[in-house]
Amino acid sequence: MTTLNIPARDIPVPVSVSPEAQAVLSMGPLTADVPWPPLDDRQAWRELIKVQDEMVLSSLTARVAGVQAKPITRMVDGVNVHVVAPPDTDDDRIVLDLHGGALILMGGSACAAMTAIAAGGTRMATWGVDYRMPPDHPYPAALDDCLTVYRALLGERDSNRIVVVGGSAGGNLAAALVVRARDEGLPLPAAVVLNTPEVDLTESGDTFTTNLGVDTILSPLKVVNELYAAGHDLAHPYLSPLFADLTGFPPTILTSGTRDLFLSNTVRMHRALRRVGVEAELHVLEAAPHGGFLGAAPEDAEIGAEIRRFIDQHCPTSTGK
Amino acid sequence: MTTLNIPARDIPVPVSVSPEAQAVLSMGPLTADVPWPPLDDRQAWRELIKVQDEMVLSSLTARVAGVQAKPITRMVDGVNVHVVAPPDTDDDRIVLDLHGGALILMGGSACAAMTAIAAGGTRMATWGVDYRMPPDHPYPAALDDCLTVYRALLGERDSNRIVVVGGSAGGNLAAALVVRARDEGLPLPAAVVLNTPEVDLTESGDTFTTNLGVDTILSPLKVVNELYAAGHDLAHPYLSPLFADLTGFPPTILTSGTRDLFLSNTVRMHRALRRVGVEAELHVLEAAPHGGFLGAAPEDAEIGAEIRRFIDQHCPTSTGK
Repeated sequence: MTTLNIPARDIPVPVSVSPEAQAVLSMGPLTADVPWPPLDDRQAWRELIKVQDEMVLSSLTARVAGVQAKPITRMVDGVNVHVVAPPDTDDDRIVLDLHGGALILMGGSACAAMTAIAAGGTRMATWGVDYRMPPDHPYPAALDDCLTVYRALLGERDSNRIVVVGGSAGGNLAAALVVRARDEGLPLPAAVVLNTPEVDLTESGDTFTTNLGVDTILSPLKVVNELYAAGHDLAHPYLSPLFADLTGFPPTILTSGTRDLFLSNTVRMHRALRRVGVEAELHVLEAAPHGGFLGAAPEDAEIGAEIRRFIDQHCPTSTGK
Repeated sequence: MTTLNIPARDIPVPVSVSPEAQAVLSMGPLTADVPWPPLDDRQAWRELIKVQDEMVLSSLTARVAGVQAKPITRMVDGVNVHVVAPPDTDDDRIVLDLHGGALILMGGSACAAMTAIAAGGTRMATWGVDYRMPPDHPYPAALDDCLTVYRALLGERDSNRIVVVGGSAGGNLAAALVVRARDEGLPLPAAVVLNTPEVDLTESGDTFTTNLGVDTILSPLKVVNELYAAGHDLAHPYLSPLFADLTGFPPTILTSGTRDLFLSNTVRMHRALRRVGVEAELHVLEAAPHGGFLGAAPEDAEIGAEIRRFIDQHCPTSTGK
């Protein structure tokens, strides 16, 4: 026997999570199962991205309205960066935030909004990199942009004042950024936060199968990954940093959920980091799909508190506050 | 919508684990789907337990043969304890090991064998508690026995020299032991190891559904839990320590796998401990069913090394070795 045959089944909303999380799980699948355009039909990809981004942006309106600090967009060595400086702080730490969105979505206004939300969560100054994306700018454009901004940041701050944060596709870029920075001899950030990171573009992990359909937020992204790679090897360490030599990686916190399609990505990255002696912490939310509970549940706040504690531990404020 | 409808599907053996782990996953389901006897048919339960224990014991022969130190069985205040003292060590730490087996299996010779294997893993002196079990000795017999032996151990060692270890049903007893010891004002052990712990006998976690059949080692145990509880509330903190006030719990390492039926048990316990500020570490093995890969894969050894490192960190040898 080499394959498990699992019969059809009904999976109820679990009683083991908060009412807010139950409400999110009760919504059922939130991803429409739309067919991807042919890889070479740039116009179709642009249209798909536009529609999806508008949907995401409108879903973020309420969360953005709740955030005090507004992003200011500036050009950093040719790359758009949304900078959020929370008011009333003498905290000299800075977060380099790399947004999610499957390496094709959530640029522009969505990136600015997500940066504001991220800064609201960490309460730290945040640079959100509006990196270039396919179909017009495939690999290595996005990673190049992240490196460009990281180098610029190193001109403004000591590396031990910098925390690199990425979720989903942003977790791919965050990990790849650190690997490439190490390879290029740059000083590394004080800490790294990888939220349900897309560290394996080949999608070889087990939960790509076991959590298929169980994760109501995310479906496999192989076609999109091909669009991003544009002929480059999906298993190359800069495209799938899970397969990189991770020696010397900074302390890293990783988060996922038991229903997350990227649970395998997350736990494999945790083990890969631990295998080379990196201080790495894993947190897995009960029944959470990809990205948690849309920021709506106390579980999300709990993970946010773990991340702030981890950052304080590995990148304390110089004022000691 | 309140329920997810997941169609039937084939889950292949993942390429993301070692060849040894792939071989274990290729075996398919290892639990026969036998019907449980009626709760009041003690003789039928005794027979089922005898057959299962013989199967388990024969499967352990090879692993036991590889272990140097042999267990010596002694009576500790009326409770059978299998004591393993690894040769050539002046390590004064001691492991109180609580075996798994659904709270009904793996007493007697199987317990002695598991204690030897456990001691081979930690390389520390180990007391394996051969606690009483159903059908003849339901709750609170097993937990009483664990407390009895723990109290006796406190007479031989300072509590900061003691590590409590439990896997599966043993994780239930390990966590319940600590909660009850705390409630009774006893000093607590230096560290706790909970491997895929059965901390919720009500089986309310999400992976009891999502990993059903995906975990090839373990099926739900509700009937057995009823046998154990013998009319006591399954949700009582001494039966389901996940629901206990965990304040003051010692540093704890928890391990599970992405295919583990008890993944929810494990991650919920981790979060519950973290919520009250306990130092708690989570490790989740890619694609591992309940209990890992039968001790046969490098992944198992890797988790073993994490556990030894955690014990060394929180319960260092007094000689500093």
